[in-house]
Amino acid sequence: MPAAPRFVRRIPEGDTRERLTCPECGFVAYENPKVVVGSVVAAADGRVLLCRRAIAPRAGFWTLPAGFLEMGETVAEGARREAWEEAQARIALDGVLAVYSIARIGQVQVIFRARFAEPGFAPGPESLETRLFAWEEIPWEQIAFPSVHWALGAWRGAATGPLPAAALEPDGTGMPGTTPPGL
Amino acid sequence: MPAAPRFVRRIPEGDTRERLTCPECGFVAYENPKVVVGSVVAAADGRVLLCRRAIAPRAGFWTLPAGFLEMGETVAEGARREAWEEAQARIALDGVLAVYSIARIGQVQVIFRARFAEPGFAPGPESLETRLFAWEEIPWEQIAFPSVHWALGAWRGAATGPLPAAALEPDGTGMPGTTPPGL
Repeated sequence: MPAAPRFVRRIPEGDTRERLTCPECGFVAYENPKVVVGSVVAAADGRVLLCRRAIAPRAGFWTLPAGFLEMGETVAEGARREAWEEAQARIALDGVLAVYSIARIGQVQVIFRARFAEPGFAPGPESLETRLFAWEEIPWEQIAFPSVHWALGAWRGAATGPLPAAALEPDGTGMPGTTPPGL
Repeated sequence: MPAAPRFVRRIPEGDTRERLTCPECGFVAYENPKVVVGSVVAAADGRVLLCRRAIAPRAGFWTLPAGFLEMGETVAEGARREAWEEAQARIALDGVLAVYSIARIGQVQVIFRARFAEPGFAPGPESLETRLFAWEEIPWEQIAFPSVHWALGAWRGAATGPLPAAALEPDGTGMPGTTPPGL
């Protein structure tokens, strides 16, 4: 049974920022923002795929198929894997719909516009339910995260035709999918 | 003086993948792909800003102002910081030009199209030299990384007018800035 971690924050030699360091062995656990990959997957009739979360945080709320990028994956591969794991869906990616920075929690979310490569979807182990929603049916009060609102808004603005430049996170005005002024 | 790190790879309880773990204290050092942020910065005359690297890897070769995103930053903030640190340039970002996954080395690069917000640039501590290059002058044989080739190619295809959807890494065909077929 290992003891509790005793990592402390200090500036390693040759660095300029505090890093999480083990005082026993000198290991530096660099903390960097993590990449989340996900997709707005639309059926041919324009309905979009949402997953009701089986796990914390925000269990019971609806989200896009998305999750942390793993080592050795491209963002496209990660987005396809997450659609399979969370919604048992085989998807084809059109391109990058949005790049959202959630600086407060150290996340960069790369969200694709996608469609079904094969028919069929079903809840994976991390989903209670998977469902297609027409725009008017989307349960806005039961959406898990602000970035899901933003991504759906960006998708709505670019649902058909060529994809425009990636949307970025709003600047706090609450407008989904817009590029922050002064960017 | 701390001892040498003794981390081992094992699958933590409740996980499905091997993670780097301290056998002494149980600390799990999750390894995730890291985000690199950078820009193709163009002057009003269409010349682009390159920096000659003062540091490893690829010291002496030319690159874009780019570097690792830090905790607490948005990708836009990180790209502006890197332009300042490496080229003493104040830049304004147009939008996301490309999202390149370099899966082999665990990197996701978010590259912006940018222009100068203020005149002037100069080498920062990690650059030997900073210079504007017309397209015909770009020292292709002295470019530090393949993704710099890709980004310049994507920029060339979208140098003026509205930004299209973000370019993705090539699929190994050597074509810069193209979206992999079958994505």
